[in-house]
Amino acid sequence: MTELIYEQPLNEKTRSYLRLEYLEQQLQTNLAHDHQHRCFYPLFSLCELTERCDYRGEVLKDIDKQILQLSNWQNLPHIDTRQVSIYLSKLSDAREALSVCERPGSQLKLNRFLAALRQRFNMPGACCNFDLPQLHYWLAKPWDIRQHEYSEWIDHFTALLVPIKLLLDLTRQTTEYSDAVATAGFFQGNSNQALSLIRVKLDSQQGCYPTISGHKNRYAIHFVQFDQQKHSDRNIEFKLATCS
Amino acid sequence: MTELIYEQPLNEKTRSYLRLEYLEQQLQTNLAHDHQHRCFYPLFSLCELTERCDYRGEVLKDIDKQILQLSNWQNLPHIDTRQVSIYLSKLSDAREALSVCERPGSQLKLNRFLAALRQRFNMPGACCNFDLPQLHYWLAKPWDIRQHEYSEWIDHFTALLVPIKLLLDLTRQTTEYSDAVATAGFFQGNSNQALSLIRVKLDSQQGCYPTISGHKNRYAIHFVQFDQQKHSDRNIEFKLATCS
Repeated sequence: MTELIYEQPLNEKTRSYLRLEYLEQQLQTNLAHDHQHRCFYPLFSLCELTERCDYRGEVLKDIDKQILQLSNWQNLPHIDTRQVSIYLSKLSDAREALSVCERPGSQLKLNRFLAALRQRFNMPGACCNFDLPQLHYWLAKPWDIRQHEYSEWIDHFTALLVPIKLLLDLTRQTTEYSDAVATAGFFQGNSNQALSLIRVKLDSQQGCYPTISGHKNRYAIHFVQFDQQKHSDRNIEFKLATCS
Repeated sequence: MTELIYEQPLNEKTRSYLRLEYLEQQLQTNLAHDHQHRCFYPLFSLCELTERCDYRGEVLKDIDKQILQLSNWQNLPHIDTRQVSIYLSKLSDAREALSVCERPGSQLKLNRFLAALRQRFNMPGACCNFDLPQLHYWLAKPWDIRQHEYSEWIDHFTALLVPIKLLLDLTRQTTEYSDAVATAGFFQGNSNQALSLIRVKLDSQQGCYPTISGHKNRYAIHFVQFDQQKHSDRNIEFKLATCS
């Protein structure tokens, strides 16, 4: 049995955060294992996203909001104050690092090796030996040396990615999973509180995946049979968490 | 010591062949090892290239030319007739397979799973859980099942890629490497015969890579120091093969 978690953001900010978190996970996988030239895909995606948008201001505002909320919580009864303190300390460390850092990725633009690669990485099959002899050279370096260089490159994004992971973790912890059933493959829900994230936990043995849509106070979940790639008409049992 | 081979095509046809061969190597690596969603990059690149251009006619013409040439060679003295027979038989098998096959990749267009993925794979960071829940589902399948499906997908390109590899091998075998020196990092060459491929073999300890340019009868090689990403002014010893 493999339980899979599917997440759907219900606002633009959470959507961006999830995208950045996904890329962060890719970077870490590429740091742990040698994926050759494939390691550049998430790196260049991050460069692209952080050039389009400077997330720092929004993330700092979000950190402050969370710090305020958690500080208020600490005075409530039945609160795990130790856990809250740990988060408060992590958040203020992350705030400190993010507020003093340069725009993430800006330094990498000056790296001529990466700049040359990046130009070609979005073209189909354009990382050949003759397109990028410098890549051919780089890939022949021992893995520990490449790993070290890669870790230096991805470090440029650490100050941004650490708080995003923290903020998403806190969002995910706002709600626990509860059991739900999608009648004839469909489920609809409402919430008085504005929601930011829908989470669906589903056993992959069911042979289907959810497609989730929604906005703030309403959401709908359709389950799709993978093999036929069409809407399931079965009753699907799943676990649901709606996070605010 | 790591000896690296750098290749530069001197005509458009060889350029296309090298690009397709490079993608074929990527497919094989992804078939041998689980690279998760990264396996789709070369697959979609191949789809893209074969949609832009139907290589079948040109490859068939090239196979015929080679068969004719090899058949003539068989009557010459000092020829390894066994080796030539092996190539002749491989070429006619490849010809047979390519002449009866549909346009490579055309069947994959009908695969709705692949079509949905392909739409998003060129967008930065756009393969998230919420962008492509079906990918999240697929990646949770056991590796042997994914491997099997992947091998079926890449099989659509086999009839095209096998002869291309053969033709490039024959091109590479037209010449042996000879020693050469690039004075102050620069080397220039001429040939009375039209060339299609320049090959440079270089020890990576030299700390540099070649950038090769040229056309048919003339070519130039500049060596670039990797660390400074600038032209080397040292005398560089290397091995050179100019293939027609």
